[in-house]
Amino acid sequence: MSREEERLARVALSRLGEPGDPRLTGLVSELGGRTVRDALLAEKDLVGLRHDVAERLEGLDPAGELERAARVGVRFVIPGDPEWPEELEQLARAAESADRGGVPVGLWVRSSRRLDELSPRVAVVGSRSSTTYGESVAAEIAATTARAGLTVVSGAAFGIDQAAHRGALAVSGGTIAVLACGADRAYPGDHRRLIDHIADVGAVVSEAAPGCAPTRVRFLARNRLIAGLATGTVLVEAAARSGALSTAGWAERLNRQLMGVPGPVTSACSQGVHDRIRSGSASLVTGGRDVLELVGRPGEHLQVPVRGAEQRRDRLTTRHRQVLDAVPVARHVGADSIARTAGVGLREVRTALGHLERLGMVHSDGRGWRVAPSGHVPRS
Amino acid sequence: MSREEERLARVALSRLGEPGDPRLTGLVSELGGRTVRDALLAEKDLVGLRHDVAERLEGLDPAGELERAARVGVRFVIPGDPEWPEELEQLARAAESADRGGVPVGLWVRSSRRLDELSPRVAVVGSRSSTTYGESVAAEIAATTARAGLTVVSGAAFGIDQAAHRGALAVSGGTIAVLACGADRAYPGDHRRLIDHIADVGAVVSEAAPGCAPTRVRFLARNRLIAGLATGTVLVEAAARSGALSTAGWAERLNRQLMGVPGPVTSACSQGVHDRIRSGSASLVTGGRDVLELVGRPGEHLQVPVRGAEQRRDRLTTRHRQVLDAVPVARHVGADSIARTAGVGLREVRTALGHLERLGMVHSDGRGWRVAPSGHVPRS
Repeated sequence: MSREEERLARVALSRLGEPGDPRLTGLVSELGGRTVRDALLAEKDLVGLRHDVAERLEGLDPAGELERAARVGVRFVIPGDPEWPEELEQLARAAESADRGGVPVGLWVRSSRRLDELSPRVAVVGSRSSTTYGESVAAEIAATTARAGLTVVSGAAFGIDQAAHRGALAVSGGTIAVLACGADRAYPGDHRRLIDHIADVGAVVSEAAPGCAPTRVRFLARNRLIAGLATGTVLVEAAARSGALSTAGWAERLNRQLMGVPGPVTSACSQGVHDRIRSGSASLVTGGRDVLELVGRPGEHLQVPVRGAEQRRDRLTTRHRQVLDAVPVARHVGADSIARTAGVGLREVRTALGHLERLGMVHSDGRGWRVAPSGHVPRS
Repeated sequence: MSREEERLARVALSRLGEPGDPRLTGLVSELGGRTVRDALLAEKDLVGLRHDVAERLEGLDPAGELERAARVGVRFVIPGDPEWPEELEQLARAAESADRGGVPVGLWVRSSRRLDELSPRVAVVGSRSSTTYGESVAAEIAATTARAGLTVVSGAAFGIDQAAHRGALAVSGGTIAVLACGADRAYPGDHRRLIDHIADVGAVVSEAAPGCAPTRVRFLARNRLIAGLATGTVLVEAAARSGALSTAGWAERLNRQLMGVPGPVTSACSQGVHDRIRSGSASLVTGGRDVLELVGRPGEHLQVPVRGAEQRRDRLTTRHRQVLDAVPVARHVGADSIARTAGVGLREVRTALGHLERLGMVHSDGRGWRVAPSGHVPRS
């Protein structure tokens, strides 16, 4: 019962607040929906949440809301529900550094399946004004990852989003459309049939209450959910100021794997992706197989130790790799011996060893060095 | 006189040895050409250099070689000559880890200009079987960097090499063709006119003595010279096993800037480049401007402090960047205050600060932290 009371409180807050308003999401995360609702009803002006909220709150009928939503196949999922995506909890930390943020007070879900069946997830996003090239790569990545058991999350927009959903649907894979409008609506309108189909076989999800229109702030809040629901986000095509870059930014903020598909440098659609790869925030992927390697297949350890070590090795500078390669696996040897083997100066070797030790890749017994057991990468 | 004697000794060794034979280049770097020649004449079997070398050595006429070379416009440049490319000295260190290596005993140069006028240099290399896309990007990069005063180094091969030379020539820029055959010859034969033109306005360079045919080992040795002559190497298109990847490998081994131009993931020609970008060994560049940013313009400090700091910042993890951004510029504050600003736990902040301090990006006065003067990156 108290669980359902919490749900009703959150329904009311979801109806009143803007998706991703960090004042609301922050308070609700910390205090729970009922406490926040009751405080607002008592006309406490919590961190500037507008005075009139209380009045509007009184006029609401959350139980009726839920009933009406149920009639169009929409339910309201809240933290603590078995199907609640735990990945979203990390949004609590990411909230503070942005205008939008926080764990949603709940998710409006139009689906015949439980959200936890549609998991783990990978987001595939990109420009609305995409190229045929980008769309075909997006579809391939979606199909390959969906076939491997991942659910493809995207925004149901024109261009890359659409190609991603269709790629997953083509192989009867799981897919989730996260909307900026209510989960009962369809935006863009041209995608009504696509969105209905996704609701049938996957899920349509929104932070905005049913009936809500898509607005700019809701799009931005929506982008954080796309990144927040997924283990990793693939950016397929994005011009320098594409909205998909906001999703990419959330993936970064959440320390999730951000991946980018390169394209011709002459294509404006790839510019934003190239920027992210160049700055090191996105890993270059050339297709679904690369994506599976980075986010892991369901049932697989997300970071198999050897692959992890290999990736760590790839991130080293040439000089550090040179030194690492000169460190023996079986016994400890002195830095001077490593310097001779590596053909690198002793001072530089000492600095490099210190760095590698901090990374857990080499081990010192005080007098000499050897490769740390987990840091050993068998050469293929 | 002794300088010319050294030159004659090296002419003889160049005629007898294979380009990039690490036994020969290593000994000559260490002992000098005359000592090695004299030892061989005394039939000392130095590190396995074949016995018959001494006999063949006796039959040579290095002074006559130089004269005949001069008649076809070719001279022999050796270490210590004012125009000798000092960059090649770093090949001494890189030799140990590869079959080919070492500082060439000398360079055969066909050019009316001094090599040090054709400097600094950037290498632009790639597949012989390139696409129109790759060729046009190679030409743009060559033209942009040449216009900025860099000399474009490549191998005069079909495809990307040719496009690179032509791009530099189109803007009357400097360009150097490094050949696997003698500098008096032209390979491929179809590029005879191109190579002659490069000799007229730039330089044709070879480690192999005049008249030598291009062989597989000479191509591999040649690739190390292309990377060795240049501050940075741009890989434009390279299939998974392209020879251009050997040049890229040398750039890495030399710790020089390796850059890669992305392309459609559907193009086999871009696969080798994407591999290098993905592994982190190549930086993604989308055109000449990016290349200039990474290798610097002539007359510019190769690493202007602000850009250096910015690049260092780009290499940080999201978490470390978050912490760095919370460190004040003007005064020292405690780690707890930084933790609050960053929204990151205190323990993690302490670890991050230690890392940033080792990178020289933050400074501690024992009680608090501030951004290190050189580490401050003005936000644009």
